[in-house]
Amino acid sequence: MGPGLHAKPHDISCAHDLGKLSAQAGWVVLTGGRDMGVMDAASRGAKLAGGLTIGIVPDSSPSDLSEFVDIAIATGMGSARNNINVLSSDVVIACGMGMGTASEIALALKANKPVILLNAGEVAIDFFHTLSPLNVTIAANVEDAINKAKILLDSLSN
Amino acid sequence: MGPGLHAKPHDISCAHDLGKLSAQAGWVVLTGGRDMGVMDAASRGAKLAGGLTIGIVPDSSPSDLSEFVDIAIATGMGSARNNINVLSSDVVIACGMGMGTASEIALALKANKPVILLNAGEVAIDFFHTLSPLNVTIAANVEDAINKAKILLDSLSN
Amino acid sequence: MGPGLHAKPHDISCAHDLGKLSAQAGWVVLTGGRDMGVMDAASRGAKLAGGLTIGIVPDSSPSDLSEFVDIAIATGMGSARNNINVLSSDVVIACGMGMGTASEIALALKANKPVILLNAGEVAIDFFHTLSPLNVTIAANVEDAINKAKILLDSLSN
Amino acid sequence: MGPGLHAKPHDISCAHDLGKLSAQAGWVVLTGGRDMGVMDAASRGAKLAGGLTIGIVPDSSPSDLSEFVDIAIATGMGSARNNINVLSSDVVIACGMGMGTASEIALALKANKPVILLNAGEVAIDFFHTLSPLNVTIAANVEDAINKAKILLDSLSN
Repeated sequence: MGPGLHAKPHDISCAHDLGKLSAQAGWVVLTGGRDMGVMDAASRGAKLAGGLTIGIVPDSSPSDLSEFVDIAIATGMGSARNNINVLSSDVVIACGMGMGTASEIALALKANKPVILLNAGEVAIDFFHTLSPLNVTIAANVEDAINKAKILLDSLSN
Repeated sequence: MGPGLHAKPHDISCAHDLGKLSAQAGWVVLTGGRDMGVMDAASRGAKLAGGLTIGIVPDSSPSDLSEFVDIAIATGMGSARNNINVLSSDVVIACGMGMGTASEIALALKANKPVILLNAGEVAIDFFHTLSPLNVTIAANVEDAINKAKILLDSLSN
Repeated sequence: MGPGLHAKPHDISCAHDLGKLSAQAGWVVLTGGRDMGVMDAASRGAKLAGGLTIGIVPDSSPSDLSEFVDIAIATGMGSARNNINVLSSDVVIACGMGMGTASEIALALKANKPVILLNAGEVAIDFFHTLSPLNVTIAANVEDAINKAKILLDSLSN
Repeated sequence: MGPGLHAKPHDISCAHDLGKLSAQAGWVVLTGGRDMGVMDAASRGAKLAGGLTIGIVPDSSPSDLSEFVDIAIATGMGSARNNINVLSSDVVIACGMGMGTASEIALALKANKPVILLNAGEVAIDFFHTLSPLNVTIAANVEDAINKAKILLDSLSN
């Protein structure tokens, strides 16, 4: 999860690597599906590494779909689809920060899902850590995020 | 799409074959995802033929998920997820009839999606044909449904 | 519930009277909220009789809102809001028939809500009666629909 | 908007007064509808002052409905209903903080709705102010929140 239109270059670069390493780990990569920002970059990274990508799009038809999404789920429900994004994920990695991303993190925590924050900024880290100390994990970089996701997935399957 | 709990044996058998032939045609099979009735049988048929299966489940966690679903999308929105099922499909094949199935057909027609009816019964055929003469196609059997879906998909991609 | 854009004059006239008599019975009138067809007419009838009207609109802002709706609920989820319409109703009266209306009737029956059909046409009556013999009631005219709704509401509160 | 189960006594007391003053200002009070925490208190305050209260409940039937809600909208879509709460509001007042509340604030900002924070805590204020400097307003107390809501509503209607 991460910003679309207003994603920063560093977030986009990290998202690409998160997608690539997730695919290499054998994980399915699920994003908001649009052809911009973190969603697009994570899907691209995953596809280039031979992974499978899912996009849960807010529109009723996949008009702004990333070309790197294999499976497009058209919800037609706008930002309410953010709840589907997190309910359908085992681990949520948030890369960067924005209003939609913040709603996804909050909805994930509400649904008791583990969330890993990358490039969130100190203020956001403070906030979400206060909101849910147990389910929020801070990652120092892409590799750290992937390693922490592996540990969380292992603990879920045990 | 088709009945879950109250599916008839013939509908289940047809759903299995629809799933199998869809997978053999190279299509992704999307169902309501539950471990019962037409959803489960179509997913099973598709998996046994090496296909990819998506399940859009009504619950917030995939507790009643068919074991033949590869990708589970947990919506947590009950029957409102029926709209996502049809928005995410290129062609809707309804196998058998029930209240949920009827809602999916009506929502599909509302979204201007082509619908193929198999084992719907005369009364249902009459009703949906009256409702949308152009978008409702009647299939005589599984092979006929698959052939008509092929024609519809070809016309969509042209 | 009933057709919007393609509502027939007789359906619109009946919807107005249904709204009026519902308000006079002390009921809150809930519709799909748009400024057209059965939704608009039922809200208008209810308002002119001093009733309270709710509109559950498909858009994320109430741009096409009927001027006779007191409380607009903006869902931003398109036709998936049809499920909210029926879940929030004690009794569903369908006036006329169309694709959206058919989806609402089917979703209502799936949610075990009583449905009264007015001006549905023989084919639709046959279909929905077959689908759910117990929860589908046929009304001969507006007064009959209101009387049958009263009986259903009495039985729900007992 | 505000916490349900884990609401603090001071938040509940403020929510009651927010509801009362909102009703006295002639506003409709819309909450998440449940019989607990800030939702219940705001509805209670509004009802005791003769106001009209709407509750957008997450369940498919209003089983945990606050007794102070006049109009219950049953969404059956869990936390995804948080988006409906904010889309249907002209101004969002968040009283206290929690995971659901945070998701509502973020979804409101995403939908470009003005948000007033009361009893949010410094960390949350920092975070949301950074996220959307223009649409986030801080209130010092209940009266200040109501005054600021009045100004925002006036600017919306001009």
